[in-house]
This record gives sequence, C-alpha cells and structure tokens, in this order.
Amino acid sequence: MAGAPVVGPIKCKAAVAWGPNQELVIEEIEVDAPQADEVRVRIVAVSLCHTDLSFLAMAQAQFPRILGHEGAGVVESVGEGVKDFKVGDHVLPVYVGECGECSNCKRDHNNLCEKYWPCLKGTMMLHPVGQKSRFSVLKEGKVQPILSFFTSTFSEYTVIKADCCAKIHDDAPFEKACLFGCGLPTGFGAAWNTAKVEKGSIVAVIGLGTIGLAAADAARIAGASRVIGIDINPKKFELAKKFGVTECINPKDHQSPIQKVLQDLTSGGVDYCFECVGNVDLMLAALESTREGTGKTIIVGLDPSGRPLSFNPTHLFGRSIMSPVCGEYKGKSHIPGLIDKLVKQELSVDEYITDTLPFEEINKAIALLKNGDCLRCVLTMG
Amino acid sequence: MAGAPVVGPIKCKAAVAWGPNQELVIEEIEVDAPQADEVRVRIVAVSLCHTDLSFLAMAQAQFPRILGHEGAGVVESVGEGVKDFKVGDHVLPVYVGECGECSNCKRDHNNLCEKYWPCLKGTMMLHPVGQKSRFSVLKEGKVQPILSFFTSTFSEYTVIKADCCAKIHDDAPFEKACLFGCGLPTGFGAAWNTAKVEKGSIVAVIGLGTIGLAAADAARIAGASRVIGIDINPKKFELAKKFGVTECINPKDHQSPIQKVLQDLTSGGVDYCFECVGNVDLMLAALESTREGTGKTIIVGLDPSGRPLSFNPTHLFGRSIMSPVCGEYKGKSHIPGLIDKLVKQELSVDEYITDTLPFEEINKAIALLKNGDCLRCVLTMG
Ligand SMILES: [Zn+2]
Ligand SMILES: [Zn+2]
Ligand SMILES: [Zn+2]
Ligand SMILES: [Zn+2]
Repeated sequence: MAGAPVVGPIKCKAAVAWGPNQELVIEEIEVDAPQADEVRVRIVAVSLCHTDLSFLAMAQAQFPRILGHEGAGVVESVGEGVKDFKVGDHVLPVYVGECGECSNCKRDHNNLCEKYWPCLKGTMMLHPVGQKSRFSVLKEGKVQPILSFFTSTFSEYTVIKADCCAKIHDDAPFEKACLFGCGLPTGFGAAWNTAKVEKGSIVAVIGLGTIGLAAADAARIAGASRVIGIDINPKKFELAKKFGVTECINPKDHQSPIQKVLQDLTSGGVDYCFECVGNVDLMLAALESTREGTGKTIIVGLDPSGRPLSFNPTHLFGRSIMSPVCGEYKGKSHIPGLIDKLVKQELSVDEYITDTLPFEEINKAIALLKNGDCLRCVLTMG
Repeated sequence: MAGAPVVGPIKCKAAVAWGPNQELVIEEIEVDAPQADEVRVRIVAVSLCHTDLSFLAMAQAQFPRILGHEGAGVVESVGEGVKDFKVGDHVLPVYVGECGECSNCKRDHNNLCEKYWPCLKGTMMLHPVGQKSRFSVLKEGKVQPILSFFTSTFSEYTVIKADCCAKIHDDAPFEKACLFGCGLPTGFGAAWNTAKVEKGSIVAVIGLGTIGLAAADAARIAGASRVIGIDINPKKFELAKKFGVTECINPKDHQSPIQKVLQDLTSGGVDYCFECVGNVDLMLAALESTREGTGKTIIVGLDPSGRPLSFNPTHLFGRSIMSPVCGEYKGKSHIPGLIDKLVKQELSVDEYITDTLPFEEINKAIALLKNGDCLRCVLTMG
C-alpha cells in the first residue's frame, strides 16, 4: 500500500531485568519488526502488578527479560496477515490470548484459549509470540537476546500476537486503560463472571490489594449488602471503604481463626469468599467461611508453596470452589467493553491509581508496590 | 367445609427398620393426622435408593424408623393452613424442601432452603416435619413411636410438610414418577444445572449406578460428543450404552490410575467429570482427569470415611469443583417440570426400572440393589 511505513527493527528504551531481585535497568534495546499475525505496539502507559515482582524474585528464572503485563498504547506497525488492526489503533496487550477458533474461544463461559493459555502456566518464561522473543540489546559489541514475559509492556515498544491484543476506545486515557491488562479484570470478573454476586448477598474478600479491592468494588456494584474486607495491614482499611468494603477485619485482632470470626459475624457464613492473597491456609479459611450448603469460594491468589489444599469433601456439600484466570474475561472480546464503561463513566478506576511516575522511575514504583500501601503506580512513557 | 373428610389418625402397612442391617418388617402402624402446614400422602409406588441402604447399615443410627425417600402418591388429607394442595392431588414427596420465602428460595441458582436444608445433613434422623415423627406402632400393648427418614415413603401413608411436597401431572404414572424423588434429578441436574454440559463436550462418569447413568443420559441429551463410563463392574457396560455412554473403562483393566487413562484417551482431559461413587480417591481422580485450566469436577457421591480431599490449589487454575445437592433442583418448583417432560414423552425413564415387585417384597428389592446389577426396583402398594 502506498504510504505504508516501511517496517523494520526499531530502537527504543526498555526496563530490563538482568537477574533475580536486581533493580531494572533502562536500556536502549532493539525491537524486531512484527512477524506474521503480530503487531508492534508503542506503549504509552504501564502499571505494575505483583506478578511482575513475584517473577523478578524467582531465583530459578532466566534473565535478561522484559517484564510487564499491564500497559496500553498505539499500534505502530502490523505484520503480514493482520486484518483486525491498523497503524494508529489504540490497544491493550492482553495475556489471555484468543484465537477465536478453538473450542474454548467458541464457548461463552471459558476464556482459556487452547492455543494461548498454556503460555500462562508453568512456562511463564514463554512469550505468547513463541519461543523466541522480539527483543535484543547490544552489550559489549554483541547482540544479546532479551526474553519476554507475558506481553512485556515495560518497553516503549513491544511485539505481541494480534490474538493477544484488544482494540480499545479512542477516548480511553492510556494511564487508566493500562489497569485493564490484569488486576482490574481479574478482580471484577471474579465477582461478576465467576461468583456472579447478586443483590443482597454477603461477600468477604481476603487480601485488600488491587485485585481484592476490585472484587469488592464489583461486589458493591452488583448490590452486595455487606462486603467484609480482611487484611493484616490495617492501613488499608480506610482506603478499602472507597471500594465498597463495608467492614474490615484484621485477623491479628482475633483469637479465633478468621473463618470462625466470619461465620459468627454473618450468622452462618458469607455467600462468596474471595481469596486474593495466594496462601493455602487462607484458601481453606475462605472455604470454611462460606455458608454451609451454599457458599462459593473463589480462589484468585496463586500459592507458590506447593502445599496442598485439604478438606473433608462432605464440607463441600452444596458449595463450590473455583479458580478463575483473569476473571474469566476473554481479552480481545471482553476487555474493550469494560473500557467502554470507563469512557462512559459507568466505571471509575481513579482510586486504584495511588501513584504516578515517569517510566524511568520504574524502580521507585517497584519499591512503592512492595511497601504495601500502593495499589497501582502508573508509569508514563517519555 | 361441608363434605370434607374428618381427619384423624389412620392405620396402614409400612416397612419398618428395627435395627442396623436388619430386614425390614411389614407392620401395621398408625399415621397421625397432618398438623398445620402438613399433608398426608397415600403412597402408590416407591423405589429404593442407595442412601436408604447406607442409612440402614449405620450402627450408630436410632431405630425403629421408616426409610424411603423416593415415592409418589395422592394427597389423602391436608392440615390447617395448607393452601396449595387438596385431597386427591397427585404428588411427589421431596426431601429438598422449599419455604418460598428465604433468600435461597428466592435465588434462582440455589436450591437449599434455609428452613429445610439442615434436615439433609448430619441429623438425617430428623424428619422435615420436626423432631417428632407422625408414625407409631403398637407393640406388646404399648404405643412405640417410629422415627422418620427424609420423606419416609416406605409406608402406605406418610406425613410431610406441604413445603416438601411437589404437585405433579395427573397423567404421570406413579411407578415412574417416584424415581424423581432423588436419583434421577440428582443425576440429571448434576449435568444440566451444575456442570451445564454443552454440545460437543467430553464427559466422564465415575460409577454407573442410577445417578451416574442419569448424569450420562443428561449429558447425552445436552449433546456431549463423548460420555466415558467408568466402573469396576463390567456387567454394567452393556446397559450403560442405553444411557448414552459411548465408551466404558474398567479401572481394573489398566496399570495407570484412571485419571491418566482418561487424560490419554482424551488428549488432555475431559470437560466434565462426575464422581458418583462417594470415594475421596475417585474425587481426586475426577479432578485430575479434567482438562487443565478448564475442567469442571462435579462431586455427586458422599464419602462417609472422613478422609480429606487434598490437592495442589495451583492445579485448580481455571478449573472448578462443585458438589450439588439433588442436582440443584428445588423440589416444589422444578421437579413438576421434569415430570411434565415424562408425560410428554420428552424424557424416558423406563430403562432405569430394572425390577418391579409388590411393596411387601421390599427385602428382596434391597437384596437386588445390594447385588449391584439392579438400577431401580419399583415397589407398588397393594
Ligand atoms: Zn482459542
Ligand atoms: Zn498481573
Ligand atoms: Zn426457603
Ligand atoms: Zn436418594
């Protein structure tokens, strides 16, 4: 096509993780041209999620790597065969890919595309685009490849499969839209899609980080009559009320285990309990805090310890346990609708953004998130 | 009301359980008049469920007692305040009561009425009508009370709460309708209401008794492409094919655990696995036989051993486990609709009735069910 930009490699800045627990380094890197069915996206704003930090702490992980999976931007170039994106489209890279053709993509109630979802588990080292990443850096005269991580948004440019890219509303502010890459849909969807919280129900949320608060917020919107927040950091309680949390419990203030406290407080248990920490003891507490015979336990956190979740199956009588991935949202199909709500002001996400910084100060953002008082720190590119 | 029958106690025959593992004894008993909000039902046909046998085998249970929770009949008299039944109505006693007013009754997706469902658990000794049963027997000149069990259908007359009574179609044959008291809705609902099996999905059913076959049958009707039946009794395999089971596996024929066999046979797992035995090892096998990231495990059996179900919660990623009670059907609201399907011949239950006997031969029916080749033995009253 006349006037189409010549697509070649591009040089830009990225925050590179060189080793476990090391500070990220802003480097000039080279980003390959998008190959067939890929798009290259200019990232405008990113936010940090705890999963980035967890990965950065993994001693056994391979480096160097570009982390980041919450980010929003503009399509800069498209690879061969890409039909649903053009240069200039506003987009959100999504780690739950969607081929549109597999049986899961065709089902309403399942968001784990058979083609892409294995990238999420076990081998988080793999980029959805394949084994080889599209990033490299010149070090001491040698070209060194840089690994990817999910959608690798901690870079001014990233390359992703078109199937892992959601087209979003032109009027959506990038610094808000980026939150929809992981944390917000994970929490919203846990309440709306998985639990299907309804009017008048009693909800408990264990862990008042962004995901837990998003679940609380969604439960409030769905009409829950009580949303009980549980956290061992009482500094979160004031903020939590802005997200619909009606009462807060610090397990440290109680002799009894938290399930007993919740059972007593609700005369028989909560309708829905969301475990948003990733601790197997809290998962059991969540199950036991729900109403006998009816309660739903939604496990949102991932416990990396390998310890088993163990319970008498007769206690499950009438209850259920589910563990949704990214709130059961299909990235490409569903996330744009959520962002439309943001544009129409049916949904506000301002309260989640507790900090904003320029991209170059990403290590400061990491420190803020580790500190525990920060929900989301949004970083904007140059 | 002029012409209304005078309601008093009534004498009739019932099969009384006098002690654990003893043969039932056909006795002349007295059945009290229905009290407020109760109905007395003349039972026309009953069938036996494994739960009756399990209870009869409980050394710690109290006796004498009238068992039975599958039965259909005709309203003989109504207590004060009963508005929704009149003498002569064809009805099905249901053990999942429905007060119509509690929050669970008002919710679409929950069938465990807060008023009645505790009768189902722990204290199965209690009759839904209250602590005191409506049965007694004269022994050596003394009136001895007889305990109830669920709806106590092994009697020519039984008394139940009107909330535990479903009005059924006048043209429904009692000897078929009685199956809807427990086994059939438990299996059908596990597939239709809980799993929501859809077209093209792959299903496994562990345990090919009535409930397992009803789940298989419902999966077939829902359009499952494969329904894999698992049982250690290969004599069931021929019959199972009539219920939509497309292939059968005998775990005894395999070196590998059944989850491995199912994973291999389906290139990655089944979409839905129904555990219909009540064994914690099989519950774990069910979970591990479902597709990673998407599979649903439906625990229908109850394991009385108290052994825990134990698994790494990261294996639950995207999966879910549920344990429906009576297929999530509300007795009064939903079961009549199922029986309408029977009348309209949209549903056939003939294949479940492997034996028929007169009520007096109930001990023979128990022997048949224990033997394992029988699905349902229907007993008709004199
Ligand atoms: Zn797909
Ligand atoms: Zn994340
Ligand atoms: Zn109720
Ligand atoms: Zn039963």
